[in-house]
Amino acid sequence: MSLIARIDGRFTMRQGALEDPVVAYETLGTLNTSASNAVLIFTGLSPSAHVASNEINQASGWWEDMVGPDKPIDTDRYFVVCVNSLGSCFGSTGPASNDPATGKPYRLSFPVLTLEDIACAGGRVLDHLGIERLHTVIGASMGGMTALAFALLHPERTAALISISSAARSLPFSIALRSLQREMIRRDPAWQDGNYQIPGDGPAMGMRLARKLGMITYRSAQEWETRFGRERTTDRAPEVGPFGIDFEIESYLDAHAQKFVGSFDANCYLYLSRAMDLFDASDHGGSLKQAFKRLRLERAMVIGVETDFLFPIHQQEELALALQQNIQDVRFARLDSMQGHDSFLVDMDRFRPAIASFF
Amino acid sequence: MSLIARIDGRFTMRQGALEDPVVAYETLGTLNTSASNAVLIFTGLSPSAHVASNEINQASGWWEDMVGPDKPIDTDRYFVVCVNSLGSCFGSTGPASNDPATGKPYRLSFPVLTLEDIACAGGRVLDHLGIERLHTVIGASMGGMTALAFALLHPERTAALISISSAARSLPFSIALRSLQREMIRRDPAWQDGNYQIPGDGPAMGMRLARKLGMITYRSAQEWETRFGRERTTDRAPEVGPFGIDFEIESYLDAHAQKFVGSFDANCYLYLSRAMDLFDASDHGGSLKQAFKRLRLERAMVIGVETDFLFPIHQQEELALALQQNIQDVRFARLDSMQGHDSFLVDMDRFRPAIASFF
Repeated sequence: MSLIARIDGRFTMRQGALEDPVVAYETLGTLNTSASNAVLIFTGLSPSAHVASNEINQASGWWEDMVGPDKPIDTDRYFVVCVNSLGSCFGSTGPASNDPATGKPYRLSFPVLTLEDIACAGGRVLDHLGIERLHTVIGASMGGMTALAFALLHPERTAALISISSAARSLPFSIALRSLQREMIRRDPAWQDGNYQIPGDGPAMGMRLARKLGMITYRSAQEWETRFGRERTTDRAPEVGPFGIDFEIESYLDAHAQKFVGSFDANCYLYLSRAMDLFDASDHGGSLKQAFKRLRLERAMVIGVETDFLFPIHQQEELALALQQNIQDVRFARLDSMQGHDSFLVDMDRFRPAIASFF
Repeated sequence: MSLIARIDGRFTMRQGALEDPVVAYETLGTLNTSASNAVLIFTGLSPSAHVASNEINQASGWWEDMVGPDKPIDTDRYFVVCVNSLGSCFGSTGPASNDPATGKPYRLSFPVLTLEDIACAGGRVLDHLGIERLHTVIGASMGGMTALAFALLHPERTAALISISSAARSLPFSIALRSLQREMIRRDPAWQDGNYQIPGDGPAMGMRLARKLGMITYRSAQEWETRFGRERTTDRAPEVGPFGIDFEIESYLDAHAQKFVGSFDANCYLYLSRAMDLFDASDHGGSLKQAFKRLRLERAMVIGVETDFLFPIHQQEELALALQQNIQDVRFARLDSMQGHDSFLVDMDRFRPAIASFF
């Protein structure tokens, strides 16, 4: 249901190129005559461009409480563009798309993907829409890294940056977790070295395991202690036996993992996951300090959550401090949400005022 | 190479029974004439009874720096007994042992295992050795929970308790991680519902994935940031391809996981892992406070590590505070080791003085 921006001709990536790729996007609000009220949203690893309900797609979006009329990102004032990341599987060209050269899915012949490529593809959508310079580029998690990559690659194209629960680089702890998630998928015999049937179930078992590990890292121990404690599940139906589901927390993870499987292409997941590992903003200058000299931001905001152990608060601080070296107006919001990395999706009581204060 | 204590007849467990099980153990030092200098060590999930080099087995043990002549647990003064947990696979009866009734391995017909059963089996070893009352029972990680179970089940049998990087109960975050590890093993087709060949490779892939997740949870993000940063591995031999090993941290995890596979029986791992989830000291009285009224300890020590996120420091505090309700002399050592949960195995500069101060 998203709109499609076609990038005609050769799209050069960091390590390869694509012919005539497309980027799916959705928009909310109206671009003003000076085209100065545009806000670009990059997403985390798994969401589509459907950030919030709009005229074309009235279903609730993944950030419904944040984007819309009278909401913190107010679509009565701003023209909001959200893109589906290049390499993803919700309308943008990715490993599950057909390679025009062969008529078959790219699968592992898709070039190595970087967040810089996703950022550039987002820039092409702005070209398509006639937007030269953004009011703000914003992203959470992987989207925050992509937004930063955008500001580094196209310093003149945005006046402001909001980075949420993100980081200037991936560190070994999160690399280890993502590497293990990818291995779970690759070790599933149904992965078939990437050659599973598309469309089809693909490596459902590996995806389910990877999603469970994801869920464990996206939330916080404190939240689960409060929500689940040592409660036993009353619904043992999904699986019995000596090592089946017993505790409520096991049942919760299983239900969430089941929902994910089938909704996301496994190869796309592998490429996007790896792209996060590869990201290091200091690649744009030898050091973070040197890299950030490229930035031409008027304002920036870094939001982090105390209980986030995937993108820990010290990484948010590092990013905010590095930005302050070059930008006058940098705000750093340290939120004490309970829900860990995923707080930006669920803890609206803390996140809505933080975002609203910026706009 | 361990010694074997045979438990003649029926050994009743919390949920089942075993006929004539055995418990492997090792001893160091000499029991004094009043049999009052005995120290019993329960292990974490994976070690054997070989805690340190001794006359029978001169190889280095898993806690070589802690136990021996002139070491913090001084075998010139104390008679140290270390048991291989019931349910494990290093000499004690477990799922990989032959069921005398069938002459075949128990596999999943082994009764549900609890830490209380392991604690009782340890008590039988003391009977075997003619030890009525311990100087101290000590354990780290799962071993700390087992030591606590021992003190609750046999209050009269120990004068002191040392709990290291452990907890009074398993909380949903650690249950989730262990549940996922078990699922990785169970989803490996080579597991064959527990019926893989013994001896044999068994579900090597699942065990490798589970071990990697274990390693991630046993150490700390801070340690890895310092040790590995974003270094790329120079040894890409183990695996190439677009999603193979690239970062040093990935190579490190792979090397450790390879070492583990083949050295531990998969079904034993499943049983011991589940036993940790099931542990809740408050089962011994309705609440922790009520349960701890059973204790007859003269002294206790709780040691925890700030960077441990599997057994977080707040759980160590909870345990220490609950012990203080009933025991005069309770020490709480909060160590700022970098190595997370595994610090007791590697950060000897901090752990040796802490343990020595108690003895």
